[in-house]
Amino acid sequence: MFRTVSVIGGDLRQLTLAGLLEEDGYDVIIYGFDRDIKTGDLCAARDLTAALNADIIILPVPVSFDNENINMPFSDKPLTVDELISGINPLSVVFGGRISPALSLSLESKGVMHRDYMKRDELAIRNAVPTAEGAIEIAISETPITVHGSKSLVLGYGKVGKVLAKALDGLGAVTYVEARKYADLALIESHGCIPLTMNETKTRINEFDIIFNTIPALVLTKDVLEKVDPRTLIIDLASKPGGVDFKAAADLGIKVIWALSLPGKVAPVTAGMIIKDTITNIIGELGL
Amino acid sequence: MFRTVSVIGGDLRQLTLAGLLEEDGYDVIIYGFDRDIKTGDLCAARDLTAALNADIIILPVPVSFDNENINMPFSDKPLTVDELISGINPLSVVFGGRISPALSLSLESKGVMHRDYMKRDELAIRNAVPTAEGAIEIAISETPITVHGSKSLVLGYGKVGKVLAKALDGLGAVTYVEARKYADLALIESHGCIPLTMNETKTRINEFDIIFNTIPALVLTKDVLEKVDPRTLIIDLASKPGGVDFKAAADLGIKVIWALSLPGKVAPVTAGMIIKDTITNIIGELGL
Amino acid sequence: MFRTVSVIGGDLRQLTLAGLLEEDGYDVIIYGFDRDIKTGDLCAARDLTAALNADIIILPVPVSFDNENINMPFSDKPLTVDELISGINPLSVVFGGRISPALSLSLESKGVMHRDYMKRDELAIRNAVPTAEGAIEIAISETPITVHGSKSLVLGYGKVGKVLAKALDGLGAVTYVEARKYADLALIESHGCIPLTMNETKTRINEFDIIFNTIPALVLTKDVLEKVDPRTLIIDLASKPGGVDFKAAADLGIKVIWALSLPGKVAPVTAGMIIKDTITNIIGELGL
Amino acid sequence: MFRTVSVIGGDLRQLTLAGLLEEDGYDVIIYGFDRDIKTGDLCAARDLTAALNADIIILPVPVSFDNENINMPFSDKPLTVDELISGINPLSVVFGGRISPALSLSLESKGVMHRDYMKRDELAIRNAVPTAEGAIEIAISETPITVHGSKSLVLGYGKVGKVLAKALDGLGAVTYVEARKYADLALIESHGCIPLTMNETKTRINEFDIIFNTIPALVLTKDVLEKVDPRTLIIDLASKPGGVDFKAAADLGIKVIWALSLPGKVAPVTAGMIIKDTITNIIGELGL
Repeated sequence: MFRTVSVIGGDLRQLTLAGLLEEDGYDVIIYGFDRDIKTGDLCAARDLTAALNADIIILPVPVSFDNENINMPFSDKPLTVDELISGINPLSVVFGGRISPALSLSLESKGVMHRDYMKRDELAIRNAVPTAEGAIEIAISETPITVHGSKSLVLGYGKVGKVLAKALDGLGAVTYVEARKYADLALIESHGCIPLTMNETKTRINEFDIIFNTIPALVLTKDVLEKVDPRTLIIDLASKPGGVDFKAAADLGIKVIWALSLPGKVAPVTAGMIIKDTITNIIGELGL
Repeated sequence: MFRTVSVIGGDLRQLTLAGLLEEDGYDVIIYGFDRDIKTGDLCAARDLTAALNADIIILPVPVSFDNENINMPFSDKPLTVDELISGINPLSVVFGGRISPALSLSLESKGVMHRDYMKRDELAIRNAVPTAEGAIEIAISETPITVHGSKSLVLGYGKVGKVLAKALDGLGAVTYVEARKYADLALIESHGCIPLTMNETKTRINEFDIIFNTIPALVLTKDVLEKVDPRTLIIDLASKPGGVDFKAAADLGIKVIWALSLPGKVAPVTAGMIIKDTITNIIGELGL
Repeated sequence: MFRTVSVIGGDLRQLTLAGLLEEDGYDVIIYGFDRDIKTGDLCAARDLTAALNADIIILPVPVSFDNENINMPFSDKPLTVDELISGINPLSVVFGGRISPALSLSLESKGVMHRDYMKRDELAIRNAVPTAEGAIEIAISETPITVHGSKSLVLGYGKVGKVLAKALDGLGAVTYVEARKYADLALIESHGCIPLTMNETKTRINEFDIIFNTIPALVLTKDVLEKVDPRTLIIDLASKPGGVDFKAAADLGIKVIWALSLPGKVAPVTAGMIIKDTITNIIGELGL
Repeated sequence: MFRTVSVIGGDLRQLTLAGLLEEDGYDVIIYGFDRDIKTGDLCAARDLTAALNADIIILPVPVSFDNENINMPFSDKPLTVDELISGINPLSVVFGGRISPALSLSLESKGVMHRDYMKRDELAIRNAVPTAEGAIEIAISETPITVHGSKSLVLGYGKVGKVLAKALDGLGAVTYVEARKYADLALIESHGCIPLTMNETKTRINEFDIIFNTIPALVLTKDVLEKVDPRTLIIDLASKPGGVDFKAAADLGIKVIWALSLPGKVAPVTAGMIIKDTITNIIGELGL
């Protein structure tokens, strides 16, 4: 059985998963934090060699922002991707979030088995919960009305749309959800929300207090925005390039909040638990 | 545009959809009911020829129980499948529920366009609501405890499982759901229920007040049933051959209720509306 | 500490509470059941003298239907109220449901401390759950539509109204609640339902698929009923004389179901647990 | 019928209710805002005499912070309570929030009918919604975990406790509620949360991720806090002097957020609508 795990870089998510793996009986090496996870004291120099020779190496999400340095915000000393590659034990198994094609190739060329935990469905589904809560937090703080009783529209009924619609309904919002497929419209209704087709959405786009976009495509174009009530708050949860014509919205005086990477911001400990469970699932599947 | 619709056979579901289609502006011909939909009086003989020459012909669900006669419980006079085929206008479009391969072939050989509305996802999803309510009704009436506060287990998290779990949660049951895929387990948790893997389910199968099966496979085998508390009520919602070893359950003194075709029984008007909306969707897609 | 309890008469509720009291360490004497609670065998003659000398004597609900005989449906041999009074040990403490003023006087004259558990708020509140579930069961089985998506009206927002409205909302009904006080109207809205004043209710009484009455007064008078859609189902949960002009409803062809004493019918085991907990609360308060 | 209303002082809540009263057909005079409610432009001098001679005069909440000046944060020029009293038309009817005994006496001595809208139950109940949302916002932003799945404890089951517990449950928190009365404990259970007695709460106080206090008394004393997990977040919603021994909490390293007057901060427009509806109710009751 695999016994040692190193957790390299990242933030509170990584420290959380390191702690949980320790509870599971692994020997855990942390690299890339200035302070000890347990005592909070400044740490002596970490042993990079040990970290790169662990049975399992867990990299943060994203592994790197610039494809040069490992994402290591709590360390004064950088670690480059090249250093990592050159020092890694080929028998280690690497887990990382949003592993770039280049890094994947480098690992492959050294024969290092690696998996991207951000590509797992169970992670994306569970991350929808902190994402929805982050969106709810914004809705509460950035509107002068309560979410309860508000007319809220969710664009898209994928992983985030489903959880967000349920949360809005749970808080008492009058919750509309736009979807394209008949099957999704049926699902929306069976879940207690009000389904809208694309055409209905366009016709009624002026009615809503809050619009949440979860569709990763430019859906709130200038044409559509021109019909939106300027008092409406738009919360865009779509990853880059976002689902809103931000310039048009600004010109029209419509407030848009583009909220990205909410799980790590809103609930790093929960997000760390989710990554840990996902890695545990993969380990089980690989029979490690 | 298509103007005439005939509704041939069936029950209150078909009368409901006939009424709704009339409201939409169609000329509706009803065939196979002894009494007039509006007055309730005994009807004069219907014009089968007119019915078989309508632009759209809607057959019941199932179209036929025995592959010989059209399902026509409210008519004293039978209509055979052969009569239907021989009299049908090849330009008509036929909609039916669970069209048999043989009937499909016959229609094809006459060049009649036909669609099975029971194969549509939006119908199956919306039918999950009356199915879940039927299951809830059984749970309330057949146990000496309240659903609220009961430990309830749903086996399977497909269309029916999702809606049923939500309804149980809405009534205050402590709701467990068994699923196989990690992604489904994550979804169950995000929806506020307690996910169980197959192994956890087997270990804890003795804990539940009510077990609802939605999986169309023999999951509650003799082995599993031997661990179930004899006071547990099992409600099997899986279509034939069912998900429970009924003989073993009887021998063990476990009460099992096998509840099939609930939408038509529990909520025929709603079920009729669902069929009507589904047919309307198909008509839209076909551009009729 | 009090050690012996006798449970005299009643039904599955009383057997349930007897079993729970035994689990709590009491010596429990059951009187008035033909069969043993554990073995299911026919019982030998019970010792009435012992039952009437227990520290605590628990009578059923109601204690008596006719003020002459104790309510004892599972016994072939009756026990009269007079026999009970004459044989009872004055040091016993008696608990009963709906103790009549006459019985109360008789017990008082013998110096027997007694309490009516049906007068306790916590019992009435918890009994609202099986009452609501019984009403839901009727709504599912007696309408041709699903509760989900139905327009449902609850008259009154007392104990039963609150729980019923929550259950309807949990099942996805569009839930309206009528109340008189501004404070209740505010509470209804904060709980996610749609509040209606008495006047609004009268104006809109024709709109509903299902009307649930929880107000113990004649609220659905002939005048009001004349405006109700004949397809509406009325479920009256008010105790005698009920909240509906039943004759007028029958004349108008409106279906009314008057559902009384649902907890004992729908969920006798839960109802027995509720009585047991309530008696335990009273015992605690009395310091017995 | 009363025709003119003046709205004197306050914030967005007052502007909101002014707008709503205008929609209802009143002639509305706004006093104490530097900018016009419609144009946003700097206003010309307002006519205090007209404002003090309106049929109805609406004062903010609180009417005054210091018992000397009217609460008028959006005005550069103060208005003293004495000026108000001396100029007021005795035939006007005054509505205000938290009218001090001194002001009440002054108004009475001039024969001015006045009502404190903050004393109305329907206002307090509806204000519980923005209060609960404010608490939820804090819980999301100030903990590193999601509310969903958290173990949350609500102390007290009054107006705010009820709405907050429902919102937490709606977001998927495992929601415990402490109450003293058996009837409240029964209500908590029937609403789908987990009831705790005072003693159970003390024993289990170390288990919770988030503790919300709604009881206006010192319940989280040093003794109790010593048993709380230092990672627990405490959100105190009780008005002054608060329900937490803040010093003891600080010494123990427990994070406490004391959140007061949330409706005006979190949802001023909703809060204005609530005040407006409440005043309308009072006007109706007074037959003005």
